Amino acid sequence: MHDSDKLAVVLMSGGMDSALCTAIAIQDGYEIAALHLNYGQRTEKRELQAFDELCDFYFIKKKLVVNVEHLVLIGQSSLTDKNIEVEKADLERKEIPSSYVPFRNGNILSIAASWAETLKAAAIYIGAMQLDSSGYPDCRREFFDAFQNAINTGTKPETNIRIITPIINFTKKDIVLQGKNLNVPFHLTWSCYQNEDKACGVCDSCALRLRGFGEAGIEDPLPYIKNSEYS
Amino acid sequence: MHDSDKLAVVLMSGGMDSALCTAIAIQDGYEIAALHLNYGQRTEKRELQAFDELCDFYFIKKKLVVNVEHLVLIGQSSLTDKNIEVEKADLERKEIPSSYVPFRNGNILSIAASWAETLKAAAIYIGAMQLDSSGYPDCRREFFDAFQNAINTGTKPETNIRIITPIINFTKKDIVLQGKNLNVPFHLTWSCYQNEDKACGVCDSCALRLRGFGEAGIEDPLPYIKNSEYS
Repeated sequence: MHDSDKLAVVLMSGGMDSALCTAIAIQDGYEIAALHLNYGQRTEKRELQAFDELCDFYFIKKKLVVNVEHLVLIGQSSLTDKNIEVEKADLERKEIPSSYVPFRNGNILSIAASWAETLKAAAIYIGAMQLDSSGYPDCRREFFDAFQNAINTGTKPETNIRIITPIINFTKKDIVLQGKNLNVPFHLTWSCYQNEDKACGVCDSCALRLRGFGEAGIEDPLPYIKNSEYS
Repeated sequence: MHDSDKLAVVLMSGGMDSALCTAIAIQDGYEIAALHLNYGQRTEKRELQAFDELCDFYFIKKKLVVNVEHLVLIGQSSLTDKNIEVEKADLERKEIPSSYVPFRNGNILSIAASWAETLKAAAIYIGAMQLDSSGYPDCRREFFDAFQNAINTGTKPETNIRIITPIINFTKKDIVLQGKNLNVPFHLTWSCYQNEDKACGVCDSCALRLRGFGEAGIEDPLPYIKNSEYS
């Protein structure tokens, strides 16, 4: 169906952002190579389940799951160190939250670039959002522009990989609305940083997700322990 | 002895280039945090031994060894895939050799940047050489400049990490001569891509090393199976 130069590596965490990215990449005409990273987050298994179910839903056969051990070893953040308590969401907070994993998107894009060059893929889709990114420096437009230049200079002359950030200026409300338009299976996605059975409803990621569904006027199909103030 | 802002992450493969980088970083006044990566190369164990012995030699206590599993999984190259034969050296060759691991230095620098930001280190030393780099695109000056910009934009505002490539314009001859000046323990280093007991003398890495010692007029202290034409 597709040309081999229409292959795209899509970063699929299993969350709603990357699920929408997948739908957009397919709409853009790409065959998908799905890349999932375990980086020692609390909800690793649940996210992997969401990844597999999303791949099945979209009939994706090219899959790669990578254990990014060093982000576990390097630790420091509440996402990777179970000794640090996950902070309760504060969406007005300006400083960088403790769930920050240093230079995470640099590591993620490097892995994606290695795989993309091997596969001769033409693009990397990543569902970063600078508005709702809790101030992570590696979610900003200028970081992706800089990394694009690093890939251009650090790969073979004949390699031509474009980083595509289709939802970088979206809010979570936009994600929900656009996902609804493209029939994204939100019931298969997972966002909670804290739990694996029922979403906690209070961590940053749950709060952002619930606020997005709330503002879109659509009900989140996931089960929650309790509704947070943002739902 | 040193200020905490004088900490440097040094990438230490266990080869002579990174051993010289360590000596230069110490001379520059840095306390060293030594980072070693296993990326599925044939001689992984021997390189780790060299890393440990070099750390002991330089009294380095901060050490991190990371298994970069994805470069094994992604495979493709002769360094990581035992089904591809290691090419015999051809130092006049212009095209990129099969030992190329796609975007390897992008991955390496991302890991180093994550650790450096966690440690609040001020620098990353990497022993890349663009002259003797067999045409790897991610060993060139312009790649490191681009990646510096990616680190600047992708880390916290208060983080300030400099990529330092002290031997980027060195030849292997320069490495040997400067290493001799700084008393680098070349007998503890390992370069061969092929063997772990006696160096093969014929792979790219052995050939470059032997040519460097030959041009410097100094004998390589390592044991070889046979002397290549470059010794």
